[in-house]
This record gives sequence, structure tokens and C-alpha cells, in this order.
Amino acid sequence: MPQAKVGIINVTGYTGSELARLLYQHPGVDLAWVTGRSAVGRRLGEFFPHLAAIDLEIKAEPEEVDLLFSALPHKASAEALLAPLEQGTKVVDLSADLRLKDAEDYRTWYGFTHPAPHLLAEAVYGLVELNRAQIARARLVANPGCYPTAAILALAPALKAGIIEPDIVVDAKSGVSGAGRTLTFTTHFSEANENVFAYALEGHRHLPEIVHELARVAEREISLTFVPHLVPMTRGILCSCYARLVPGKIASGEKGKEEASQLYRDFYQDEPFVKIVDTAPQTKQTWGNNLCLIHPTIDLRCERLVVVSCIDNLVKGAAGQALQCMNLMLGFPETTGLESLAVFP
Amino acid sequence: MPQAKVGIINVTGYTGSELARLLYQHPGVDLAWVTGRSAVGRRLGEFFPHLAAIDLEIKAEPEEVDLLFSALPHKASAEALLAPLEQGTKVVDLSADLRLKDAEDYRTWYGFTHPAPHLLAEAVYGLVELNRAQIARARLVANPGCYPTAAILALAPALKAGIIEPDIVVDAKSGVSGAGRTLTFTTHFSEANENVFAYALEGHRHLPEIVHELARVAEREISLTFVPHLVPMTRGILCSCYARLVPGKIASGEKGKEEASQLYRDFYQDEPFVKIVDTAPQTKQTWGNNLCLIHPTIDLRCERLVVVSCIDNLVKGAAGQALQCMNLMLGFPETTGLESLAVFP
Amino acid sequence: MPQAKVGIINVTGYTGSELARLLYQHPGVDLAWVTGRSAVGRRLGEFFPHLAAIDLEIKAEPEEVDLLFSALPHKASAEALLAPLEQGTKVVDLSADLRLKDAEDYRTWYGFTHPAPHLLAEAVYGLVELNRAQIARARLVANPGCYPTAAILALAPALKAGIIEPDIVVDAKSGVSGAGRTLTFTTHFSEANENVFAYALEGHRHLPEIVHELARVAEREISLTFVPHLVPMTRGILCSCYARLVPGKIASGEKGKEEASQLYRDFYQDEPFVKIVDTAPQTKQTWGNNLCLIHPTIDLRCERLVVVSCIDNLVKGAAGQALQCMNLMLGFPETTGLESLAVFP
Amino acid sequence: MPQAKVGIINVTGYTGSELARLLYQHPGVDLAWVTGRSAVGRRLGEFFPHLAAIDLEIKAEPEEVDLLFSALPHKASAEALLAPLEQGTKVVDLSADLRLKDAEDYRTWYGFTHPAPHLLAEAVYGLVELNRAQIARARLVANPGCYPTAAILALAPALKAGIIEPDIVVDAKSGVSGAGRTLTFTTHFSEANENVFAYALEGHRHLPEIVHELARVAEREISLTFVPHLVPMTRGILCSCYARLVPGKIASGEKGKEEASQLYRDFYQDEPFVKIVDTAPQTKQTWGNNLCLIHPTIDLRCERLVVVSCIDNLVKGAAGQALQCMNLMLGFPETTGLESLAVFP
Repeated sequence: MPQAKVGIINVTGYTGSELARLLYQHPGVDLAWVTGRSAVGRRLGEFFPHLAAIDLEIKAEPEEVDLLFSALPHKASAEALLAPLEQGTKVVDLSADLRLKDAEDYRTWYGFTHPAPHLLAEAVYGLVELNRAQIARARLVANPGCYPTAAILALAPALKAGIIEPDIVVDAKSGVSGAGRTLTFTTHFSEANENVFAYALEGHRHLPEIVHELARVAEREISLTFVPHLVPMTRGILCSCYARLVPGKIASGEKGKEEASQLYRDFYQDEPFVKIVDTAPQTKQTWGNNLCLIHPTIDLRCERLVVVSCIDNLVKGAAGQALQCMNLMLGFPETTGLESLAVFP
Repeated sequence: MPQAKVGIINVTGYTGSELARLLYQHPGVDLAWVTGRSAVGRRLGEFFPHLAAIDLEIKAEPEEVDLLFSALPHKASAEALLAPLEQGTKVVDLSADLRLKDAEDYRTWYGFTHPAPHLLAEAVYGLVELNRAQIARARLVANPGCYPTAAILALAPALKAGIIEPDIVVDAKSGVSGAGRTLTFTTHFSEANENVFAYALEGHRHLPEIVHELARVAEREISLTFVPHLVPMTRGILCSCYARLVPGKIASGEKGKEEASQLYRDFYQDEPFVKIVDTAPQTKQTWGNNLCLIHPTIDLRCERLVVVSCIDNLVKGAAGQALQCMNLMLGFPETTGLESLAVFP
Repeated sequence: MPQAKVGIINVTGYTGSELARLLYQHPGVDLAWVTGRSAVGRRLGEFFPHLAAIDLEIKAEPEEVDLLFSALPHKASAEALLAPLEQGTKVVDLSADLRLKDAEDYRTWYGFTHPAPHLLAEAVYGLVELNRAQIARARLVANPGCYPTAAILALAPALKAGIIEPDIVVDAKSGVSGAGRTLTFTTHFSEANENVFAYALEGHRHLPEIVHELARVAEREISLTFVPHLVPMTRGILCSCYARLVPGKIASGEKGKEEASQLYRDFYQDEPFVKIVDTAPQTKQTWGNNLCLIHPTIDLRCERLVVVSCIDNLVKGAAGQALQCMNLMLGFPETTGLESLAVFP
Repeated sequence: MPQAKVGIINVTGYTGSELARLLYQHPGVDLAWVTGRSAVGRRLGEFFPHLAAIDLEIKAEPEEVDLLFSALPHKASAEALLAPLEQGTKVVDLSADLRLKDAEDYRTWYGFTHPAPHLLAEAVYGLVELNRAQIARARLVANPGCYPTAAILALAPALKAGIIEPDIVVDAKSGVSGAGRTLTFTTHFSEANENVFAYALEGHRHLPEIVHELARVAEREISLTFVPHLVPMTRGILCSCYARLVPGKIASGEKGKEEASQLYRDFYQDEPFVKIVDTAPQTKQTWGNNLCLIHPTIDLRCERLVVVSCIDNLVKGAAGQALQCMNLMLGFPETTGLESLAVFP
């Protein structure tokens, strides 16, 4: 296996540290350096004791590598990537900075003027199951958001096949790690524990990603309501998706359920990380690994497709997906370093 | 305040024990006895240490009282109520046995032949906010299910006003106590903890209640998909409800949100236990008390009404609601014994 | 019942908000005002939605009342109390500022020079079970810390009776709300959840309180190791206390266990808020109420007394205890406003 | 690497399923079969969805392999091992059946007459750090209990060096998975959540193991109180150990702390799975991996050694340790299949 050198910009958040954890288990790459603004000069294992086996000091600046990951917050990420990209380094950006195609959308959804709009056209949206070939030859990959990963994978087969109306509700439930490591009352243990609530009812930043990718798959405009919820667990996202069936596209009754299931199995038949399951999946079944579990069914009383999908938001929803992209970009088998089973219970 | 004698059939589950807790704090009633099949002869405080201040032995059989609560499982409850009803005792039944109007529905949804179908016509559905006057003069009240309480209160104003299409999605999230005290893998700590999942995708037993009551309010048929989820917390239900707006019934843009909010405030203006709130409510804000918090808003991109409601499933969703009914049936002020604030954090 | 006016300085933390919750349920007091530095001008119910029924605006400065509670952090509390004390207001201070007798100890344990050392002699340590008479006639009460409450109540009977050697280990486990509302990584949901750890191994600030009060009870010096642990729950403290038996003071074998239990029952026989229980108590059995449950037993293999005690750290460990003191200071029955049963499950 | 065939008797509990998870990641072994009484004939991945990648049907009976693991409950395990042992199969027994040396102890502590007392002398106690050489040449290994692993590793260095009095308190805190998959009220989510309690105050079954092994290390009798607690998390054990220092064996003051730390570092200097850490360790830092973290310190006020250790109870406390033994018994490098970092957060 060819050995490649990689680095992580901003290892001090949860996506950065999860990348370090997964890379440690990857036989083909050498994690050459990690940076982190708040912890320069400290040992990685001092900052994150679970990473003590990785013998690295946290640096201030990136150095040359074959590929780098940026786990910086939005805006800062695009700024930090300009120099490495000029040097020809391959990049997987875990921030939102390269996910949208229209620079204006960053003003609308993220409240800042994009510092490098010329990159938006080049960046490939790193959802491997939809864009495998482009990712494999990309220099610059925009790693999808956690919610979009679960939502798009849940809905793409149905929209591609045209079996649902393009009027969709996605009700998503996320563990608290999705909110990152920034300290807030919302993520303070005493207030997040034993609590469930909806948030971002005005429109969550992941909405434009979801709508853009699904409209591309559907080859038409779609109307989609996306409501995220925070639940008292650390990891995991569950998306419950609802849309009315287009009449006549699928059999009625129990037979329709089978057809929907088969349609999904066909769509994802060769995918190593997407599994269609026969019963409603549970986030705990993907804890710590890179799988997305999907269960499509039909509410026969309402002629409505109901699709439930789940992932580990920090793995398939962030760092694992980034590794999957890296594997393609560097010529490794796609599953390298990602074979761990979920940890249960 | 007149002193009344009450009893609890089957105190050994969570709705039974919660009733005992709330009744202890009610100045106008004397809890005369409690029964419980698995614990006959034991002190209540030995079985439930938090109830040690209630000096009662668990009995095998009910005795005469002014009003009794049944917290038995379905089927057993209807059977146990026949004798007390014949003696003229007022009854609040917390099981599902008297909630549906058509005996046939019990075969379909609960899998048993109803043992007392003649009671179904008489029983009043105990959702005080919709049926206050009838409850006050009722002999027999069917206490609503936990999910129906949150879902019906969330949707009744919009359906009454005709502002939404009768094609609705209710995505509900419940704490684990809603599954009761029966031991299952689903409610085993190691498997419920750090986990979220949908269940009952074939159709949950609370669906007919919800549809029946809402159709009554809407005065038309409705199509409603209801998907419950289990979340890793003990108490609380959050319902997120979605339905498209009927064009022209409500202003467009931000003004429409205000109109929706005002419509809800008007509907519940004199209700002591329903509060319309300006931001998305959190289950923890109702922990241990009898409030239902509701936040209606509009997804302007999709012209869709989104209503989020929450309750404590064991209080407003069960025992608290039963006490609220009891207060009306026995002539107490409606809020007596239910004034405690939520315990936070 | 005489109506008294009270106020809360710094309502914006968990002890402050818990005081407000409990006072709302007290029939004899009128909560006249609350202050809070970070939230001046906001409605209390906007800041803490569970307190929405309390119609108060958060003020900058205290006004005149019969008794006030200070829930400020240490140092700030002593400073803020000087003016009200000069005006003759009765005070229950929930900070640590008046718990220790020697001003020098504040330099050692809290790292500041005490701003009002003249108050230390006057302040009564507000553990009602040990100091009831003094509290009843006090102007100034130092409300005990949460750990000291559980530890002292667990050990006082044994030390008073001289049945244990004065060489003691207290291993304490606390819910996360004990760490307050200040945002830290330690209390960040994703890091506190699914985690247990010891902290303050160099010596926790509650140690001098515990040692001072127990030495007073024992009438001799004691050597005591106190190690607190954080556990992933919101409320509750459990103390497990270990000390060798003094030979010959208590019967050997099972009879010794009975004698120990009887000794504890005698010690607390008239206490409304301390219960000696026959099996190991659980923190959940005191959730939201003012009880301290204690179970003394003997490890017969090692001739060691083992005492397990538990409380709700925000009630008997803070706000409930403060209310208990207030009841004595203002002439109310000691249990007024504190009769709620624990909320279970 | 030589390829070996292994099997798991009773895969349907948490130690069995965790073994399957770890073995899947081991490059040198082939998991040939798994048995499970309650699930014979079902696919492993149907019973445990996180193991779906392991293509096995659950069998009724073991077949021939190079080494087998028994994850049966006590008594059943010894009975099941007789036949394979006669056939010369190497065995790692995860039950308690071979941990004690005196058959009589099984009557006292486990309440049954040992069905194969002749095996007790041969069985090697599988704590690699103490018995590496014997395990490597053993045919029959008794995998240590979860509590004993954490407690023995925490205390062995101090007892070996004779720096502490042989009068010890071990206060242990365990996640709920330690109680296994059997359904009980104690492990029912609604009752285990938001709760902490001590149990087995009469004497826990792991006590004789701990005392026996530590007495062997200390080469003298020891008096040890062991009190386990259940905390509301799934995985993890934390042991806090307390014992007075023998006067004169170690320097006084801060220097003593350094000497204690150095003594521990020397004792475990070449161990791949034991790490001496400078600050109090957290169970979350070992989540899913095979490390034991240990922090020794001294309470200078009391001249008491305090040692805090932690492990993942299902890995180093059960399945990981069994794999570590297997590696030695089959000639693999000791760390093979056990290199995964902890999953954090």
C-alpha cells in the first residue's frame, strides 16, 4: 500500500479529533502534523487523552503534505485553504465553505462574504455514493454536513425514481456532539440532559445543501421543510423523511412496500457503507462506524413514503466520510481504515 | 374544600405511582387505597421508596370511594371497571379501553375483543381543553394517551380554523417512561441509552385516537401520518407537526407567523395548562408539571405550518391530566394539586 | 400564616432558580424581587421558562425584605451582604463565604482575602439537624455546601457515639448540576455524558467544612479523606463513607448492624427530612425533594462501618435547606413549602 | 501471521457480542462459530445488527476449534467446558467459574456446588500484567471479572512495594452494561437513568477474587472493603482505592507523590495496556478500547494513598482482556486486534 502524508488543520474540535482517531487506524497514511489555534505547543495526547498514542505536538501552521483536512469553522476554513491549494495540495474541507455553489448563499445562510468564491465551482460535493468518480479525480472536496448526509442518502433513491412528490418533510434528531465543542447553555450537560427540542425553525444552514443536492438528483425543483432536533445523547443522527407517493408509480398495499425496499436496495447495491434494513434502524447500531442504515416504508393509510436513516454524525456525518473521500483521492481501497464495527451497547 | 375519597387500581406502574405522587399533594382528596397485582400486602413505600410518606398497604381489591382511577393495562382495565361503575363510582380510566368509540377498533388496533362495548358511548374523552363541560358532568372519563394529548393540542386550533390542509405529519419523540415499567430490551438501559429510533411504523395504537379527535375538531376527514420515536431520557414528549397551509387563509410572510400565533393564543386564552410560547419549547421546561407548551410557526419557503408541542408524558400526558379531570368531576378548582412548577434543570 | 417578604440575590444560577421554584410553592412568603447580573431587565420567565408563572423582572439591586437569600459566588456574596445586614435584614447565604470560622481558611481554600471577616463569628452553620435552635434565632445563616450536607449527616451519629475511629474516607458522587451553570468542558454534554471521574484530588473546598463540623460533633480531631466524583446525571449526591469500628463499642456480627441502624434511627428520630432506610438508598428517590436518606451498615469482614447517604444536591444540598432555615428564622413550621415528594422515575 | 480458528459459546450477552466485535478486527483468527441458547438458527446480524458484517448463524453446539471462549453464566460455563477441554481445545472462560481456587468458595459466594472442581487448580487467572508467562503456556484461562481487573491493577504496585497498610477501601463505579443483558428493574432505563446507588453491601462476588490476587501480590493477608456502585452510563468502571501509607516507606509531602507515581510507572513500564497518568483519569478516555488508566496520588493531610483507575468494563474488563490472553495462548503479538483508540466523545 502506498504511504501518503496527511495533515489536519484545527484538530481541537470533535471533527478534527475524530479524524485523528480514524487516521491512526489507517495503514496507508502517516499523520504528519496537526494544527490547533487554542493549543499550540501542547501534545495531542495531553489535549485529547484518548489520542495519547499519537505522538504529535499541536502546531500553529500547516506544512506540506499530500492531502490535508480542514476542520476549521466556516469562513476561517476557506481562508486557510488558499495557500495549500496554490501549492497543489489535495484538500478535504470539513467546513461548509465549499459546499454551496453560489457565493451569495454564504451571505444569506452564514452571514459572511465568501473569501474565495472562485473555489466554489471547482469543489466537488463529497458524498461518495452520489459523486464517486468526481471525488476520485478531485483536488478539492467539500465534505457534506452531517444532516445532509443522512437526509440526502435517505431521499435520493425515491427522488431519482420519481416515486414521491417533491414536497418533503425531513424531521432530524441529532446527538449533542453535532453542535461541536463550543460551550453553550444548549450543550451544557445539566440543560441538554433529559431534554429534547427543535431548533433553527427559521431555516437551518444545512437546508440549502440538502435542497441543492436533492434537486440535482430529482432533476426538478423541490420544496423541503427541514427541522432539526437536539436529543440527549453524544453521537448519532436519525432522519425521518416524509413525502406523498406519486400515484401509479408504485404498487398499492404491502406490495408497494416491497417495491420501495427493492428500489432502495438496487440503488445502493454496491455501496460498502449504505445498508437497507428491514426494520427501523437505531443510531446506536452505527456508533463509531461509517455506516448509513436506511429503512424505507409506506404509510398505507396516507399513501406516504416514510424513510428513516441513521448515521454516526462524527463518522459517516463528518470524519469517516472525509476519510472515504481521501481513500478515493489517494488511490486507496474505499473502505481502508473504516472497517471497524459499531460499538454496542 | 370538600374532602373526597379516591382510590387507584394498579398503582405499581408509572402512571399509577405518578397519580399517587400528585394526589399526595392535593389538599382536597384522601387516597383511601391502592391496589396492585404484583405487590399485594407490601407497603407502598417499600415498593416505591419515593412514596414512603404515603402510609398505605397495597391491596388486592378496590373498595368504595367517590372516584377511582384505573391504571391497569388495556382489556384488564375495562373488566375491572364494570363492578365499580355499577355501584355508581365515578371513574377516570387511564388505559386505552374507553378512548375509542367503535368496539371493532379494539380488535384492529389492540388485538382483543372489547369486554364492555356498552361503555364506549358513555365515556367522555378526557382532554379538558376540548371537552371541559362534558367531563365536568361525566361519570366515566377516558384519559387520553400521552402522544394524543401533545398532538391534538398542537393541531386543534389550526384544524378548527381551517388554515391547514387535512394532510398532516406528526413526528413524535418520547422519553422511555412512556413505554411503561414492563422490562424489554428496548427499554434496557444499555440499549436505550445513547440511542434514538422510530418504532411502530406499521401504525401506532394512538393513531386512531388522534385521528378521531382531530377529525371531530376539523369537521372533516383527515389523513395523518404519525411516527413515534424513543429518545434516551426518562420523561417528556415532543411533537413536531407539519401540514401545508390552505392558500389565502392566512397572510403570507412574517405576518402569517404572527396570525398563526395569535390564532393559537386566542384558542387557548383561558387555559391554565396550555401556554403558547414564542420560541421552540423544550421538554425539560415541563418536567414534572402539567403544562403543555406549544409553538406554532410557518416554514415560509414551503408554505407549511410547523407546530411544536411538549408535555411531561406522565403528568399532562397521563396522571396530571387524570387529576385535572378529577377536579372537574368532583367540583374542585381545575388547577388544585397541579400548581407545581417544572423541576429544572 | 404570617406573610413574609423575601428576595433572592443572583437568581440566574441553579441554586437561585431552585430557590425561586420552591418559594413559589411556599404559602407564607412573597418573593418580592430577584436580582441577576447577567439578565437585568429581563422577565424571570424569559430567562428560565420553567419559572414563567412567577411574574417578576430581574433587578440590578436588592430592596428591603424580611429575609434575603444570596446565591452569589463566593467573595461577591460576602460583599453584597454587608449593606442588607446593616439594615437588619435576615440573611441566608448559599455561598461558602460564611461557612468557615477562620478568615485565613478563605485564603488557603478559596484563594481570596475575606472581605468581611467580622461576620464569621456570628454566622450560624445552617445544617438544621445539628443546629436547629441557633438557626431559629439567627440573623445570619451560612447554608452548608451540598457535599458537606450529605457527608456530615451520614457521619454525625457514628462520631457522636464514638463507635468509629476518627480516620475516615468519604467517596462522593455528584450530578453535574453541582458544578453550577458556568460553562466548562467538564460540564459540556458531549464530555460529561457517559463518563465518570474523580476530581479535586488535591483537596476539595468542601473539605474544611466537613472536617470542622464533624470534629465539633466528635469532640476530637479527625482525619478525613474526601474525594468527589462527577457522574453523568443532573441532580443528586451519593456519599459512601468508610471508617473502622472502635473495638468493643458495638456488637459483633449481624447484631452490630442492627445496633448501628438503631443508633442512627435514634439520632434522627424526630427529623422530618432525614430517613434511615433498610437498603442502600438511590439518589433518584430524592429527586426534587428535601430528604436525606441514610443507610448505615457494617462490613463484617473488615469491622468497618459503611454509611451511604443521598440527597438532591439542589434541594437538601442547597435551596431546600435554605428554605428549611428560613422557615425556622421566620417562624414557619419547618416543613412548609418542602412537602413535595420526589419525582420518580 | 498464522490463522487460527476460534469459537464463542453464548454470543448473546454483552461479553459474547463484544468478543465477536473485537475478533472481527483481528487479522489472525477466523471466528468459526458462535452459539447462543435463546437465538439458535438466527443470523448473528439479525440478533445484533451491529455485527451484521459477520456472516454467521447462531448454533446450538460448539464445534472443534483451536481456542474457544465461554461467555456463559457461572455454573453453566464450567459444565459446558468439560467436553472441549477433554478434546484438548484451549479455553478462555469469561465466567467466574474458574477464577477461585477453592471449590467451597463457590458455595459461599455463588450459591452452587462447583461441577468441575478438578479444573480449579489448573486454571490460570488471566490478568496478563500479573501472570503473563503462565497464560502464554496455559490450556485453560479464567478471565478476570471487570471490577477485579480495575481494582487489582490499581493496587498491585503499592502492595508489592509494601508502601500501604493491608487495610483497604475500594469504592467502584460501574456503567450499567456490567450488569449484563438480563432484564431487571435496576437496569430498566427509566430507573437507572439519573440515578446512582451502592449495591451488594453484604459482599459482592468479585470480592474473593480481588482479595485472593492482591494477597498473593502482597504476600500477606489483607483486609479490603469493596463497595460497587451503579452509575447511569453504559460502559466504564472507575475504581477509587484508599489505604494508609506505611510510615517511612515513602517520602513525605509532594516528593512522596512523585515517588508513588514513579513506583507505578516502573511496575507497569513495559505494559502496552496500562498507562500511569498525571491527572485523574476518566472512563470516557477508555471507551471501547483495552487500556487501563491509573493515577496514584497521596492525600497528604491523612497520609493516605489514593489510586484511581479506569477501564472499559466490556473490553479490558472482559472481552478485550480475553483477546489479550488469546493472543498469548496462540502466539500472536499481545496487542493484535486491540489497537483501536478509545472513541471520544
